[in-house]
Amino acid sequence: MMNMQKIAVLTSGGDAPGMNAAVRAVVRRGISYGMEVYGINHGYEGLMHGQITLMDAGSVGDIIQRGGTILHSSRSEEFKTDAGQQRGIDELRRKGIEGLVVIGGDGSFRGAQRLSDKGFSTIGIPGTIDNDISGTEMTLGFDTAVNTVLEAIDKIRDTATSHERIFVVEVMGRHCGDIALWAGLSGGAESILIPEVNVEITDVIHRLLEGNKRGKKHSIIIVAEGVCPASEIAQRIKKEAGLDTRVTVLGHVQRGGSPSAFDRMLGSRLGAKAVDLLREGQSGKMVGIQRNRITEVDFADVFTIENDIDLDMYELSKTLSI
Amino acid sequence: MMNMQKIAVLTSGGDAPGMNAAVRAVVRRGISYGMEVYGINHGYEGLMHGQITLMDAGSVGDIIQRGGTILHSSRSEEFKTDAGQQRGIDELRRKGIEGLVVIGGDGSFRGAQRLSDKGFSTIGIPGTIDNDISGTEMTLGFDTAVNTVLEAIDKIRDTATSHERIFVVEVMGRHCGDIALWAGLSGGAESILIPEVNVEITDVIHRLLEGNKRGKKHSIIIVAEGVCPASEIAQRIKKEAGLDTRVTVLGHVQRGGSPSAFDRMLGSRLGAKAVDLLREGQSGKMVGIQRNRITEVDFADVFTIENDIDLDMYELSKTLSI
Amino acid sequence: MMNMQKIAVLTSGGDAPGMNAAVRAVVRRGISYGMEVYGINHGYEGLMHGQITLMDAGSVGDIIQRGGTILHSSRSEEFKTDAGQQRGIDELRRKGIEGLVVIGGDGSFRGAQRLSDKGFSTIGIPGTIDNDISGTEMTLGFDTAVNTVLEAIDKIRDTATSHERIFVVEVMGRHCGDIALWAGLSGGAESILIPEVNVEITDVIHRLLEGNKRGKKHSIIIVAEGVCPASEIAQRIKKEAGLDTRVTVLGHVQRGGSPSAFDRMLGSRLGAKAVDLLREGQSGKMVGIQRNRITEVDFADVFTIENDIDLDMYELSKTLSI
Amino acid sequence: MMNMQKIAVLTSGGDAPGMNAAVRAVVRRGISYGMEVYGINHGYEGLMHGQITLMDAGSVGDIIQRGGTILHSSRSEEFKTDAGQQRGIDELRRKGIEGLVVIGGDGSFRGAQRLSDKGFSTIGIPGTIDNDISGTEMTLGFDTAVNTVLEAIDKIRDTATSHERIFVVEVMGRHCGDIALWAGLSGGAESILIPEVNVEITDVIHRLLEGNKRGKKHSIIIVAEGVCPASEIAQRIKKEAGLDTRVTVLGHVQRGGSPSAFDRMLGSRLGAKAVDLLREGQSGKMVGIQRNRITEVDFADVFTIENDIDLDMYELSKTLSI
Repeated sequence: MMNMQKIAVLTSGGDAPGMNAAVRAVVRRGISYGMEVYGINHGYEGLMHGQITLMDAGSVGDIIQRGGTILHSSRSEEFKTDAGQQRGIDELRRKGIEGLVVIGGDGSFRGAQRLSDKGFSTIGIPGTIDNDISGTEMTLGFDTAVNTVLEAIDKIRDTATSHERIFVVEVMGRHCGDIALWAGLSGGAESILIPEVNVEITDVIHRLLEGNKRGKKHSIIIVAEGVCPASEIAQRIKKEAGLDTRVTVLGHVQRGGSPSAFDRMLGSRLGAKAVDLLREGQSGKMVGIQRNRITEVDFADVFTIENDIDLDMYELSKTLSI
Repeated sequence: MMNMQKIAVLTSGGDAPGMNAAVRAVVRRGISYGMEVYGINHGYEGLMHGQITLMDAGSVGDIIQRGGTILHSSRSEEFKTDAGQQRGIDELRRKGIEGLVVIGGDGSFRGAQRLSDKGFSTIGIPGTIDNDISGTEMTLGFDTAVNTVLEAIDKIRDTATSHERIFVVEVMGRHCGDIALWAGLSGGAESILIPEVNVEITDVIHRLLEGNKRGKKHSIIIVAEGVCPASEIAQRIKKEAGLDTRVTVLGHVQRGGSPSAFDRMLGSRLGAKAVDLLREGQSGKMVGIQRNRITEVDFADVFTIENDIDLDMYELSKTLSI
Repeated sequence: MMNMQKIAVLTSGGDAPGMNAAVRAVVRRGISYGMEVYGINHGYEGLMHGQITLMDAGSVGDIIQRGGTILHSSRSEEFKTDAGQQRGIDELRRKGIEGLVVIGGDGSFRGAQRLSDKGFSTIGIPGTIDNDISGTEMTLGFDTAVNTVLEAIDKIRDTATSHERIFVVEVMGRHCGDIALWAGLSGGAESILIPEVNVEITDVIHRLLEGNKRGKKHSIIIVAEGVCPASEIAQRIKKEAGLDTRVTVLGHVQRGGSPSAFDRMLGSRLGAKAVDLLREGQSGKMVGIQRNRITEVDFADVFTIENDIDLDMYELSKTLSI
Repeated sequence: MMNMQKIAVLTSGGDAPGMNAAVRAVVRRGISYGMEVYGINHGYEGLMHGQITLMDAGSVGDIIQRGGTILHSSRSEEFKTDAGQQRGIDELRRKGIEGLVVIGGDGSFRGAQRLSDKGFSTIGIPGTIDNDISGTEMTLGFDTAVNTVLEAIDKIRDTATSHERIFVVEVMGRHCGDIALWAGLSGGAESILIPEVNVEITDVIHRLLEGNKRGKKHSIIIVAEGVCPASEIAQRIKKEAGLDTRVTVLGHVQRGGSPSAFDRMLGSRLGAKAVDLLREGQSGKMVGIQRNRITEVDFADVFTIENDIDLDMYELSKTLSI
């Protein structure tokens, strides 16, 4: 067991529900080991500018239920440079801090890996609603985002049913269709379009017309933003099938909201695990959840292993939405 | 007291939460008077095509909590003609129906008034989320829609605060800024743009910059769709103040969802009152809520009296969002 | 117009959603008039112990959406005495404070009236979920509480329907049946028992058995705590009708939660109005909402006028729950 | 691959959110294989009385979002006898049904095993909010129930914080502390009492007093119903520490509500898998989720293997609630 006395934590990239639970866990787990735990404001940008404050157990009280991140987040171009990274390390060392927990997404972990490569102990926690990180089956914030999208689908279904109309709903997910797939399957969407599976819009239209014949008068189509704009699909449906179609782009509501039980649990467990790893002298790793167990994986693997979609689930969604 | 034996109810125009509560109230109040109550499917369109079914107390069980309308809704061009209206009346008379309750918005009431002018007893219930109908302080669905928008604002605020960013949120309201005003004031929005009040975007930007000086790093601007697209405002802010700004267009989620207690109450009370008026031999009127009492008003007044915004509330929103 | 420079605000008695919106409005309205506004912690207890802090516009930022009260609340025996009240006034005068806003219920207003009688300008804001205060049609927190109870009823209905069972749900309301009546009517409860209307449990059982004959296999009975314990009703139903009956006592969840749009609006408007009254040199009054307008009423009237239930609504609930 | 043509599905025991998603999946997966799928009303009781109806794809439309079970549920003493079980099999065979899916808890599976022992192909789906079934890491309804409890804790915290009070919240779980543990950990509860871990109330009181010394003025204690009544704990705290303590028993709201995304997914996947197993000629098994994969396990193992609590999580809750 290392004798690490001072650690710090920051949040980086897009905010995600559950980040506060993770911050709380890092702070309180650290304190339970007798460490001093520092919070860094505004991510890497704040790190380079020395926005580093000592936190106590009370400073993370009453935050587990809040969306966003109390440490604020930001994106930093300067930190992508060697000079920026060194500046960050200097700020940390000036305060005697020996270990860092970075809560964020893929891009944030590249910065974390550089810190680790430069000899500063750094552990990552996957915090992003997109579920697009390899080495963990769920990212922090994903479960909450899926439930938020689901609530929106449930609401839109009220109007779709009342007016017997077709809706195309665009959800987040530039490279990963998990939000679309999970929310679509659990929302009973008639079609789900994701970047991982190539589907012709002609097929979607064919499905619509078939459903119409069976008496299904309304339809909800979920499309991940990485596929194409929802408006494009609506126009094609109008043009090729003559069916009036409405569009909703869910946008930033998907990021916010009080975290679900799962995300608060996951944040708590990953935060505690990250401190445990630092304490054991480990670095350059991400903590995650795999096969329902808290695990760790090298950043190198996070960047190289492909993040697969569950194709069985995709096929299931087609079977169940007849 | 008239001896009306058979009445019918339909929903028309955009669906609104609380319509089902009103349908339930019409059916059960009618039954309590010994009437037969018929449900008409698909609004005026269905009326002209004889989609008229007898309802019993059980047929409106377990619907008070549901969004949308179990009677379905539609818009009809044909019903705007005399021939269409007469066709509707013929269908009703063929079944021996003597009175009709129309749940819908302004446009639906014009049809209702024509039926009344042609001698068919018709009462209107204001059902639309927009709160844009004169002669009632609240329309059915407005309270639910405001709470839905508010939840979205609360979620967006999480990200706005975490990233210290500006958001422009576009909400429904083509001619009436009530959704924007209520949700903006209760959501603590920094600026609210509504069709009833002419505001220069320059002033909005000025407010933003002033707030920035006082240390307010995030801002939420609510704009009713009738003012201008949210994207236009975002572009001007970016261009004129150099501030990065995100846009969310809430869209159709605003129409759906389980109705709030207020909308279920209002629907129940208006539905019962509409039946009472038919029973008293009245016609050509809308029931509504004014000064917290259930009231009635002639359709003629609904169409001619201007629907005012509460300017005190608008001024208050400016005072409180400093 | 008085030249009042310094005012204070406190919350007292049971907490209610919307209190924070009212505190925010008092602070920011005061600031907009150039006043200094002080927050008093822990109600009258804190007042007597000088827990008084200057607030700025930022200190009430990001609180409008929060349940409870950031100023904390408490009950105080000492403040019921002349000595206690004088001690409070002394603390206020020591800081140069000339006016006080008290947010709370009936009991809190008795203290407020005593302060006013002793020459200290005091205005009350009705903050309690019970809606049991005369001189205002709605108290702050009532709308949120009704919606919270409604959500619970909607959930319980799932089980009631699935198992075809009878449930008795006990809600808050010792002297006032408004929560029971509103939530019961909007939740479609089969029977509603409130302190204002004397109903024999035999009648409730009779209704149950009649419903059973018509094929209604499940029932939800709402009872205000002021009538009798829910368990007593369940036992009588079991004994006299042989029907298995489940009991749920909703308890303290009814007080909490993010305030509804209505309560945030009401809190904002009442808070602003209270400051306006102090500024005009008024005292010994409660602000409220009557016939949908913000009004003011003497404390004396608040204490003497009886708070009526809307019996039409009660009758309506019986008609609609067949 | 067997040539099974007709299967049936029933729900049994306490209802749980997600049961409708599972019913929908059984019906539609079956139809996709060209089977006829029958729904049995009122569980085993209805089975014995031949309440068996053919379902089509439309009959499970618009149900995935609903709590409870559209097939209704019940408990049956008669079905525990050989005669009752044989009667059920006879009813199924009379309709030519060859396979049965039983959605329910431990008790329901004992009946299912007897059917399988008697030669009737039967597969179980674990549907209960309690998460007390071996052979699956999550039962259907558990995730929704935890989130429901969490919302209640968040609300109670508002009052606990505002009044600086202690609350004891009693949640479901007679033999299994999972709801208490998950909701308590994610709700930031100060103490969690579960049947699996023996804790002296003296220790809970000691923790309270220690927290008090550090300035923590409010506390939430979660207790699973299997430990002892919440009121007992409150009385001991009052008596031994002199601290005023409030009690809330959450009750039946925990069973209801629209299912979470996870429960809709799980229900969909388990329902489809159950049909797949029947089609493969399997029987006497439960489908479940283990290490995040859909799996199957013999009923015999479900009954004999002990269902463990995650003690790491329990320890973590103590670390994080300081």
